[in-house]
Amino acid sequence: MPTTPYLLVDAARMRLNIRRAAELARQAGVSLRPHVKTHKSPDIARIQLAAGATGITVATIGEAEVFAAHGFDDIFIAYPVWIDAPRARRLADLVGRGVRLAVGVDSVEAAGQAGRMLGGAHLAALVEVDCGQHRSGVDPAGAGSVAAAAQRGGLEVRGVFTFPGHSYAPGVADRAAQEESDALARAVGSLADEGITAAVVSGGSTPSLAHSDLSVLTELRPGVYAFGDAQQWELGVMSPERIALTCRTTVVSHAGGRLVLDAGSKILGADRASYATGHGRLPAHPDARIVQLSEHHCVVDLAGSARPDLGTVVDVVPNHVCSAINLVDLLHLDDATGPASWPVRARGHNS
Amino acid sequence: MPTTPYLLVDAARMRLNIRRAAELARQAGVSLRPHVKTHKSPDIARIQLAAGATGITVATIGEAEVFAAHGFDDIFIAYPVWIDAPRARRLADLVGRGVRLAVGVDSVEAAGQAGRMLGGAHLAALVEVDCGQHRSGVDPAGAGSVAAAAQRGGLEVRGVFTFPGHSYAPGVADRAAQEESDALARAVGSLADEGITAAVVSGGSTPSLAHSDLSVLTELRPGVYAFGDAQQWELGVMSPERIALTCRTTVVSHAGGRLVLDAGSKILGADRASYATGHGRLPAHPDARIVQLSEHHCVVDLAGSARPDLGTVVDVVPNHVCSAINLVDLLHLDDATGPASWPVRARGHNS
Repeated sequence: MPTTPYLLVDAARMRLNIRRAAELARQAGVSLRPHVKTHKSPDIARIQLAAGATGITVATIGEAEVFAAHGFDDIFIAYPVWIDAPRARRLADLVGRGVRLAVGVDSVEAAGQAGRMLGGAHLAALVEVDCGQHRSGVDPAGAGSVAAAAQRGGLEVRGVFTFPGHSYAPGVADRAAQEESDALARAVGSLADEGITAAVVSGGSTPSLAHSDLSVLTELRPGVYAFGDAQQWELGVMSPERIALTCRTTVVSHAGGRLVLDAGSKILGADRASYATGHGRLPAHPDARIVQLSEHHCVVDLAGSARPDLGTVVDVVPNHVCSAINLVDLLHLDDATGPASWPVRARGHNS
Repeated sequence: MPTTPYLLVDAARMRLNIRRAAELARQAGVSLRPHVKTHKSPDIARIQLAAGATGITVATIGEAEVFAAHGFDDIFIAYPVWIDAPRARRLADLVGRGVRLAVGVDSVEAAGQAGRMLGGAHLAALVEVDCGQHRSGVDPAGAGSVAAAAQRGGLEVRGVFTFPGHSYAPGVADRAAQEESDALARAVGSLADEGITAAVVSGGSTPSLAHSDLSVLTELRPGVYAFGDAQQWELGVMSPERIALTCRTTVVSHAGGRLVLDAGSKILGADRASYATGHGRLPAHPDARIVQLSEHHCVVDLAGSARPDLGTVVDVVPNHVCSAINLVDLLHLDDATGPASWPVRARGHNS
C-alpha cells in the first residue's frame, strides 16, 4: 500500500452492492445502466456489466471516449450536450467505432442543433425532463416537441430520461421517486402525442433507487450505489457496513488537543450538502465529526471517543464518493487475490 | 483550445501578480517562498523563481518529489509530516538528490519521531505554530520545546512558521496578520529560551499578505496570489481585473428559464466558504451568482442581466483556485507567443 492518504476499495462490499442493484433490476424486469462517472474505471464497469448491466451511462464525451477505448460499446451520455463542430466530430468518431451512442437533449433548439450537426449519423437521443431538481431537463409537457425536433433532424429518438437529484435530502426519497415516475409518464405521453414511442424510460438515483416506480421506468442509472459514501450514510440509504470506499489517513497532529488527519479536500472532496453533519465520517468513531477541512488536513471532533495516537492509521468515508474518486489516479484494493489497484482512467475527462 | 469546460490562464495577469508580490517582498527585505500547491506546475514555479522567489513551499512529499524531478532544489514541506519508515526513505532520497529540504514539526513527539528516522540526514525542520486557525501548529509558548526535541534528534532547526488561515473571512485580514506576527514573535522567543535561533520566521497568506508585519516575518509563503479566485474577489483582496484564471464554459440549457453551464464541481471544485455568495463568479456578469452546483452543471441566477444564448461561451471564476487546478491535467494559455498549455505535473500527489 502507498503512504496515506489514499482511497481504498473494499472489493467484496463493492461486488455485493453491485449484485444487489442488478438483482433489483432483474426482478423488476428493467435495465440497469450504471453511471460510471462515479468511478471512471473500466475495471469496475466490467464488473457491473458482468452482474447484468446492459450498458453504461457517462456524463461527458471525454468519458465516453475513454470507455469506448476500453471496449465499451453501449454508452449513453446523460447530459444535454451542446453539439458544436468539434463535439460533432468526436461523437461521429465514436459512432464510427461501433459504439451504440445516445446523448441527452432538453430543448427544441438543442435538438435542432444536434440534427444539423449529426442528422443521419446514427446518433440516438433521449429527451431529458425535469422531475423536480430544476437543473437541466424540459418540462414533461414539452418533451414531445423536443423529441419531434430531434426526429426531424435525423436523430433516432430512443425515449426520455430524468435525474431525481432532489432525492438528495433527508426523508424525501419516496416523494422524489414519485415525482420522477410522474414526470416520466407525462413525458412518455407527450412523445405519444407526437406519434413517437419512448422505448426507454430512464431514471434512478442511489437515494431513490428502492422507491423507483418500475412499472413506469424501463431503465435505472444509479452511480454511487456501488460504493456508498457519507451522504448515503447520513441519508439513511446505506448503513456504514455497506460502504465500500474509504480514505485511509494518518494522524499527524494533536495540536491544541485536536485530532488532525492527513486527508483534506484534495482527496476527500469539498462537497458538503446542507444536511451533512461534517466533511466526512469515521466508521470506527461513528459519533465523531470532521469539523474543519483544509486541502491537506482535516480536524476531527471525536465526541468523547479515545484519541488515536500520532501515526495511527484512521479510515474516513468521504461525503461524496464521485468527487473523491475524481481526485485520484488509482483506487487501491484490499483484495489479496486480485490486482493491487484499479486505474481511474476517465479521471478529469470533463469535456 | 479544447472543448469546454477547461481552465484558462491569463498569463499577463498572472505574471503581473507574481511580480507584485515579489516586489513587496524585495522592498521589505524578506524572502518569498510561494506555495506551489496552488498550481502544481513547474513551469509557473520557474516564473516565480525568476521574479525573485528564493525557493518553493509544498504540502506533501509527493509534490516535493515532482518538483525535485523538475530541478527545484530548495523545498519546504510546510506540513507536520508524520515520518514513518516509507516516508523517511522518500525524504532521505530527496536530500540525497541534493535538495535543500525542510519539513514542519508541531509536537515534541513528532520531532522525536523525525529524529529517530532521519537524525543526521541533513533534514531541516521548522516548528509550526498556531496563530489562530486552530488546525495544526503548537502554541507559540511550546515552540521552544519542539525545536529542542528536533535539535536533540539531529535535525537542523531552521526556524518557525505559521499559516494565518483564519484570514479567510471578511474584514479580518489585518487582525489575522497581527495574530500571525504576535504568535511568530512569541515562538522566536520560546526558541531563544532554549538557546535556538530562528533564522527563518515564515508566514503569509494571500488575504493577509498586504498586512503582514515584515519587521517580524523573514519569509512569505502565499499561494493563491498568482491567480486569485472568487474567494479573493469576495474578500476584497483582488479585484476581478486581477484574476488570472477562469473556467471557460458553454451554455448547455435554458430549461425552465434557467442558465445552465457545462462546468460543475469536477472542474470548479466544490469549495464554498461560509462567506461565499455562490459557487463561483462570472466576470462578465458581476451581479450573477451560481446558485446550484452539480458535478457537470452549474445553474446561474443572472440577476436580471441578459441571458446568453445556448452554445455561448461564458467564463467562470472558481471559488478556490487551488482546488480547481487540482482537477485538471493541463492549464490552457491565452498567450499566442508562448506554449498552448502548462501541465499540472503534481496534480493529485496527495501523499
